[in-house]
Amino acid sequence: MKAITDYSSEDLNALLKDLQIQYQEARVQNLNLNMARGKPAAAQLDLSNKLLNKMENYTLADGTDARNYGILEGIPECRQLFGELLGLNPEQIIIGGNASLNLMFDTLSFLCLFGTGGCKPWLWQKYIGTPVKFLCPVPGYDRHFKICEELGIEMISVPLKEDGPDMDIVMDLVRKDASIKGIWCVPLHSNPQGVCYSDHVVDQLASMETAADDFRIFWDNAYGIHHIYEEVPLKDILKACMDAGHPERAYYFFSTSKISFPGAGISLIASGPENIKELKKHMSAQTIGHDKLNQLRHVRFFKTPENIRIHMEKLAEELRPKFDMVLDKLEQNLSGTGLASWSTPRGGYFVSLDTLPGCAKRTVDLARAAGVTLTEAGATYPYGKDPKDSNIRIAPTYPVIEELEKAMDIFTICVKIAGIEKIMKPD
Amino acid sequence: MKAITDYSSEDLNALLKDLQIQYQEARVQNLNLNMARGKPAAAQLDLSNKLLNKMENYTLADGTDARNYGILEGIPECRQLFGELLGLNPEQIIIGGNASLNLMFDTLSFLCLFGTGGCKPWLWQKYIGTPVKFLCPVPGYDRHFKICEELGIEMISVPLKEDGPDMDIVMDLVRKDASIKGIWCVPLHSNPQGVCYSDHVVDQLASMETAADDFRIFWDNAYGIHHIYEEVPLKDILKACMDAGHPERAYYFFSTSKISFPGAGISLIASGPENIKELKKHMSAQTIGHDKLNQLRHVRFFKTPENIRIHMEKLAEELRPKFDMVLDKLEQNLSGTGLASWSTPRGGYFVSLDTLPGCAKRTVDLARAAGVTLTEAGATYPYGKDPKDSNIRIAPTYPVIEELEKAMDIFTICVKIAGIEKIMKPD
Repeated sequence: MKAITDYSSEDLNALLKDLQIQYQEARVQNLNLNMARGKPAAAQLDLSNKLLNKMENYTLADGTDARNYGILEGIPECRQLFGELLGLNPEQIIIGGNASLNLMFDTLSFLCLFGTGGCKPWLWQKYIGTPVKFLCPVPGYDRHFKICEELGIEMISVPLKEDGPDMDIVMDLVRKDASIKGIWCVPLHSNPQGVCYSDHVVDQLASMETAADDFRIFWDNAYGIHHIYEEVPLKDILKACMDAGHPERAYYFFSTSKISFPGAGISLIASGPENIKELKKHMSAQTIGHDKLNQLRHVRFFKTPENIRIHMEKLAEELRPKFDMVLDKLEQNLSGTGLASWSTPRGGYFVSLDTLPGCAKRTVDLARAAGVTLTEAGATYPYGKDPKDSNIRIAPTYPVIEELEKAMDIFTICVKIAGIEKIMKPD
Repeated sequence: MKAITDYSSEDLNALLKDLQIQYQEARVQNLNLNMARGKPAAAQLDLSNKLLNKMENYTLADGTDARNYGILEGIPECRQLFGELLGLNPEQIIIGGNASLNLMFDTLSFLCLFGTGGCKPWLWQKYIGTPVKFLCPVPGYDRHFKICEELGIEMISVPLKEDGPDMDIVMDLVRKDASIKGIWCVPLHSNPQGVCYSDHVVDQLASMETAADDFRIFWDNAYGIHHIYEEVPLKDILKACMDAGHPERAYYFFSTSKISFPGAGISLIASGPENIKELKKHMSAQTIGHDKLNQLRHVRFFKTPENIRIHMEKLAEELRPKFDMVLDKLEQNLSGTGLASWSTPRGGYFVSLDTLPGCAKRTVDLARAAGVTLTEAGATYPYGKDPKDSNIRIAPTYPVIEELEKAMDIFTICVKIAGIEKIMKPD
């Protein structure tokens, strides 16, 4: 198939006219299709409905009444279960509320307010004129960037390669610049590209020399067991940091938002022993303890790590046809056109697509006008600004498959229209 | 009855010997009685067990699936229910997680990080050498003081009178000192004395002149409907502030921790429209939304404000015999001795007792050694330091009544021993 980028201008005109007719046909249907956020579909949530069964017994193994106050770090059986699942020492786990995002924000805000390991509070560094900076592998997760933006932490984009962040760039930057205090990482099935970090990258992150003594890795293992096709391994960052002599370098985040219920799951943070001690001190001023009944619900529902993995396989069965559909549609409608390239994730929640430069915003606008909502163009970059205006995040999980099919047909038409417009009228 | 403080030293010796025998008799029983924290008893929690029933339907009135992501400010039906209950505009309410303490910490930490109403962040003020100070009516709630301590906010004690903080002192301080940024208030059945603020005090707090433009009242209405005897009214602080031309002066906190489950209830913050807008901005970086299923559980369980009040009456029936018992024991064992005075709360969770100066710590230590745990002496003052070493907080709710009776007998023996020791050997 000849690439559209090689068409004559006459052929382009004809093709554009044809696409515009298809687009108008879609538009008059007044569709309302949403591929914007990584939300589980109702059918996925239904698989956890037994969590809503009557709770006959609310007494923990140690006799504690889970209905009452207490247990800051979370109930022992819950720390045990998720420790085993993730290969983490339960002693180094604190169970949070219903969102790991909340733990990430709070941890970063504690660092701003209090500092860590005897170093100055990060805000203090800002006030004396030293900016606080974070490395942001791009494209990445908009809510990570939002936390930095809200807390006034400067973001530096770093390319995300096939096996993780471009470590030559990362290592060079953190060795030279003591104002770089951390890096965001989604090490498995990254949002939005589905990148999985190699062992080598994990080791480099754990062992690299950093100018800042209080450099921290925010390890958001959001999709740690969210494989859709085959299982992908991930090297243990906490152990790697420990082995490299930096036991306090990484904060590890995880949640059941995309395992049980996104609105009513549980979250956790794990880290080195000193960090956990610090976090508990700050948290003990913040709360008496998180929702233990919900922790207990999850323990009673899942019982074992094996059951959680079986549950994830069922969820993968729900997701696989959707990801297959998205990738098939992209292949059928865009392959060889030269108008787009895209990721082929093995898990997680997203497919990442790159249009021709300068076409992402136009594509998203076209799709929206035809009733297909996508994540805002630019959202996958710090400050919402994609320098090439080319990255679009596709979230295929929420719609039912018939809707997804329609949405992808319209979306690919929009990619083509925006691309051809750009070829015909470059800036 | 002759006051013990008027005894001859011979009589005192005889009395002390007799008390020490009683104390030793108690001690050998190896009791384990706890009057330390304001924890509901199991019988109280049982009244909310229907919250744990199977949840057949998780769809909100507007069709939203409560299991999934979203609704930062809380589900409409929950804001409506608690708005009606408390006489607050639902638009000015944000429902939080399982603890209002968490909302208080976060709000104060937002003020430190971001400031409010265009004023500088409070931490910034601290870094340029201006301390940030809070007024703390004493005795008060140790966890409020802990939040200030953790965030490095200086605490200034202000006497709590029978109708609220000593407003002459408060008004004088806040008018003169722009570094005083706020005041902690538990306006109904205060912890630990059970003080209820008069309308006049509420109006003074709302209308007083403050040197700081960003002066804030932290209105922790923790016991807003927790009447044990008759109902005590409370003037609406948000309306009073609005009427006085300070619509953003107060943050109002409330939770169901002592209505449903302390570990798994819901919390709320209410404030002026600009504050709510600011809070939502910060919170939108922190979370996608709190646990909507738990909000819905509470709405389905209580249904109406009237039902919540009926529920509170049942809880009061559980608490009344315990408060009666504590007050009877104090009356029987200490009245007229001159060794102690105490509060007679009409609601809330505590009875406050003042020993002779210099006797609180000794009393608590004696009680602990005899198996009766009380809140640490000093806890009701900023930095854990009661300047007179005389205030002790009694929390009668958690033990069953037979245990409470034993505990109070031992406790009053300890008050007497510590008091007589002090009379015989003043420092």
